Amino acid sequence: MPLSPEQQAEIDELRNQPQSTLRVVSPGMEKHLYSAHQVLDHGFVRVVDYMGDDNAICQAARVSYGKGTKSVQNDEGLIRYLMRHWHSTPFEMCEIKLHVKLPVFVARQWIRHRTANVNEYSARYSILDREFYIPAPEHVAAQSVINNQGRGEALTGDEAARVLDILKSDSARSYDHYEEMINQDGKQGLARELARMNLPANIYTQWYWKVDLHNLLHFLRLRADAHAQYEIRVYAEAMCKIVADWVPFAYAAFEDYRLGGASLSATALGCVRRMLDGEDVTQESSGMSKGEWREFMAALGR
Amino acid sequence: MPLSPEQQAEIDELRNQPQSTLRVVSPGMEKHLYSAHQVLDHGFVRVVDYMGDDNAICQAARVSYGKGTKSVQNDEGLIRYLMRHWHSTPFEMCEIKLHVKLPVFVARQWIRHRTANVNEYSARYSILDREFYIPAPEHVAAQSVINNQGRGEALTGDEAARVLDILKSDSARSYDHYEEMINQDGKQGLARELARMNLPANIYTQWYWKVDLHNLLHFLRLRADAHAQYEIRVYAEAMCKIVADWVPFAYAAFEDYRLGGASLSATALGCVRRMLDGEDVTQESSGMSKGEWREFMAALGR
Amino acid sequence: MPLSPEQQAEIDELRNQPQSTLRVVSPGMEKHLYSAHQVLDHGFVRVVDYMGDDNAICQAARVSYGKGTKSVQNDEGLIRYLMRHWHSTPFEMCEIKLHVKLPVFVARQWIRHRTANVNEYSARYSILDREFYIPAPEHVAAQSVINNQGRGEALTGDEAARVLDILKSDSARSYDHYEEMINQDGKQGLARELARMNLPANIYTQWYWKVDLHNLLHFLRLRADAHAQYEIRVYAEAMCKIVADWVPFAYAAFEDYRLGGASLSATALGCVRRMLDGEDVTQESSGMSKGEWREFMAALGR
Amino acid sequence: MPLSPEQQAEIDELRNQPQSTLRVVSPGMEKHLYSAHQVLDHGFVRVVDYMGDDNAICQAARVSYGKGTKSVQNDEGLIRYLMRHWHSTPFEMCEIKLHVKLPVFVARQWIRHRTANVNEYSARYSILDREFYIPAPEHVAAQSVINNQGRGEALTGDEAARVLDILKSDSARSYDHYEEMINQDGKQGLARELARMNLPANIYTQWYWKVDLHNLLHFLRLRADAHAQYEIRVYAEAMCKIVADWVPFAYAAFEDYRLGGASLSATALGCVRRMLDGEDVTQESSGMSKGEWREFMAALGR
Repeated sequence: MPLSPEQQAEIDELRNQPQSTLRVVSPGMEKHLYSAHQVLDHGFVRVVDYMGDDNAICQAARVSYGKGTKSVQNDEGLIRYLMRHWHSTPFEMCEIKLHVKLPVFVARQWIRHRTANVNEYSARYSILDREFYIPAPEHVAAQSVINNQGRGEALTGDEAARVLDILKSDSARSYDHYEEMINQDGKQGLARELARMNLPANIYTQWYWKVDLHNLLHFLRLRADAHAQYEIRVYAEAMCKIVADWVPFAYAAFEDYRLGGASLSATALGCVRRMLDGEDVTQESSGMSKGEWREFMAALGR
Repeated sequence: MPLSPEQQAEIDELRNQPQSTLRVVSPGMEKHLYSAHQVLDHGFVRVVDYMGDDNAICQAARVSYGKGTKSVQNDEGLIRYLMRHWHSTPFEMCEIKLHVKLPVFVARQWIRHRTANVNEYSARYSILDREFYIPAPEHVAAQSVINNQGRGEALTGDEAARVLDILKSDSARSYDHYEEMINQDGKQGLARELARMNLPANIYTQWYWKVDLHNLLHFLRLRADAHAQYEIRVYAEAMCKIVADWVPFAYAAFEDYRLGGASLSATALGCVRRMLDGEDVTQESSGMSKGEWREFMAALGR
Repeated sequence: MPLSPEQQAEIDELRNQPQSTLRVVSPGMEKHLYSAHQVLDHGFVRVVDYMGDDNAICQAARVSYGKGTKSVQNDEGLIRYLMRHWHSTPFEMCEIKLHVKLPVFVARQWIRHRTANVNEYSARYSILDREFYIPAPEHVAAQSVINNQGRGEALTGDEAARVLDILKSDSARSYDHYEEMINQDGKQGLARELARMNLPANIYTQWYWKVDLHNLLHFLRLRADAHAQYEIRVYAEAMCKIVADWVPFAYAAFEDYRLGGASLSATALGCVRRMLDGEDVTQESSGMSKGEWREFMAALGR
Repeated sequence: MPLSPEQQAEIDELRNQPQSTLRVVSPGMEKHLYSAHQVLDHGFVRVVDYMGDDNAICQAARVSYGKGTKSVQNDEGLIRYLMRHWHSTPFEMCEIKLHVKLPVFVARQWIRHRTANVNEYSARYSILDREFYIPAPEHVAAQSVINNQGRGEALTGDEAARVLDILKSDSARSYDHYEEMINQDGKQGLARELARMNLPANIYTQWYWKVDLHNLLHFLRLRADAHAQYEIRVYAEAMCKIVADWVPFAYAAFEDYRLGGASLSATALGCVRRMLDGEDVTQESSGMSKGEWREFMAALGR
């Protein structure tokens, strides 16, 4: 159960107290407030607060461009224009605050995105719960043989069982020892800031994470990508659904221009031109490396 | 009149449409929404949106520190503790979006604070209005003789009148020429991106400015200070009043620890100790430069 | 003359004092140190200091990826891989510090890039020089009729002459009045922080600007682009030449993947596939707006 | 041994190849290049590159303040003035790049400082070494009874022995299992990105960390503080020594104004005034909480 009973009770109480505001309200987002989206075995993502909506993006853009923008384009067209031309500042005018529970090794990747505000649970100050990420059997996968930074097929049989057994028993033992070390019954008890170092990277932590929409979309582009590690990608996918409800025009433009799009180099664009002119371009004649050519072919769906 | 009739009508319409939300609401801040606080002769500050309140600061801190914080301290005490110990991240969990109209030379100082999101009216794209900052007579002041970066007494008589006359006539002429250059009646008209360069730094611009509370307080500490230029200080003071209504505990702590406080060096602390021990410390025996000693005496109110 | 005689003398003196260092040295960059590249009529860009080279980018990437990277790829291939896959952090490991003299309206665009360090000449503290940007006749251009944010053909004849006359005479008069206001001969003299507001946006300012290579390349992608205003583009182009000498592999990859490349949306990629399959795709059948289709055709060179 | 033989050989080779440069050179810093300062049992800090020196700080400040600054103040006085008045931008003009080897739980605190560039060794891509932080016996300390976020006296006897035994044996077992899981002898081998999650937070990682001097000093103020955890404080202290050699004037000012100084609130300043006027101020009459009064007394050395 990802949320503690106390957390759930506090949330339920707040959920029943709608208040009046003069601020912009996103109806699609209101329904996400106070409900936690479960991710992995013990994790979650939940929306704590938000600022702005699709219209707020346009409003900010119109401050920049003045009256002209109002007459000629509707909100959806304007948002597509802004996304296509990398006008990032209007998207920065929306903000989201999330409460996330996630394994430490996922948190370590996540935190590399620096343009966000973070308050993490302090294992220096407080005691961590006995909650560890143990992959579902179908996600216990082999090292990729073509990509150092990826995984291949799922392990099977004894090998998979052995992995799960190690992860479970080492997690349990580490936590038992953690508890033993900080336990003060008749002893002094080791300082929490020291005892925590015995805990493995699959233990869960939690934080508040606040970010503007532009930087969130940048995060999602990298982390909802097929090359991202599965365990962070599922968080990104849960957030994609939230963003789609919050700012539907912006999310649709993001899907078209970023998630589903591709950046082609000058060399690649030259190849496309040659191909459209009827030339049978090969990797050898393309001027690209093998890896680059493979990615190019994938972008063209060949 | 700082807001155009169209802007005012749009605001009035929104002001009459309170909506229901499950988000945190700051009652003190709701009353600021959709009303513009006039600053200088044509400028204003108005709150467009906000996220969070005093309680949201505590909530974020408690994510970090766990259950312990809840029992031992009330919200006000916790906020004072966080401010005193430079715990900045909980304050980053509140966000504000302002619409500001301000002279260009003020905007140029303001923008040096980089940790904010900005959408400024584009004079490349649109035509600026004929609005210039002309100081009130009591603010037409002489160069300071003790501080290169400040002003002294107000000018008087002919000298003041001559200054005001120059500012008004040069502003008017520059704008007349700006209009003439971009005017397309029977001519091509100069590109706006070029014509704007004829306009002086006292012309008004406007922007949306979005910032988190921690960085806003840092801005206010520097710009609400007596050493800040008057023309930016009045904006900071208008924002101080807004923040005091938005997050009263945080603002009170800010006043005590930052606005009214002082940083004492190791040398200065040593002098305080010697003085408390009865020694008659002078600038010569203090180990401080004259400027430093003067500031030290001011901090001690001597 | 962009540099004052005192500045030039100081530079010449430093130029003749090579020193010994154990740091990484970029031979291509050393030759830029202490020589100012003239830009516009009174502006310049000059390299004050730098950190790192192409190899430093690879070294940082290899910290991340470990030994594996060393054997399989040479530096150039690794840099192309990093650029193609938007791995930004290795490029952040190089840093450049520039001294730039530029018109205020250019500085106002430039400063919107927030991820840099800036020290600007203070007109609050010091007196600005009498130097104004007056465009060369061929750059006095009309407002674009197809793009609100651009310029069209050069103005000619009387209209061009009138524009140049206005710019020159208004600049001169503004500066005369600025000097008159701050002049203390027998008077108090207006505070500099106030007098500066009479100066137009074509006056020159100067600053030290320090930025990492990743953020510099992002700046150059936007500002060396054909859609950027001419007056900032020439600064970007001067910097492109410097970067090409500093980190030749990184710059070549940047040219291929960013400056010369294009981002295609999912919709656009679908159109390319259909075209390669022999379909005669038109704007109407493309699913794109007219503007988007025009940009797509331009990317494909049709 | 913190550096691998290959790393040491590469460093020694570079150390013997001084090169000529026209850049600013800090003699005190050159001696740090290519020598690793050992920290904790397997960690180190070493300077990879740097930009600027004390003079570069002044040079940047003088761009801002113009000629005036040159005549009236020497470099040391100017740097003290800048530090005292929180003028941060001139300090941002110096930059340092460090190679740091550190336990993961220290890295997790460190990375919260977001205004820096980081390239960390990737355990997704590469295999971590068998190196764990095991505290020296005198650092195996009890939980503090007065501060949730600190430690008290060193544990002794059996209790200390038991803690060290747990840390050593759990580290060893975790690593054995890590190796077993990724081992591909006759098996597929678990993906590295998954296997790493079994490793505890006292395993060592390493990164390149690049930061400007202003943000470095901010880091050092927080992390060289007595309230920082011992294991990060020793890194901060090693860096303090490096900074003292690199920019001696800036470091001396930092020691006086930040490390050795204190921020006093308006309330505290009021108490100092009352005490200097002969009043016997107590916690009860001070207007401060007990915690605040204790800190105030400590600042005054009473």
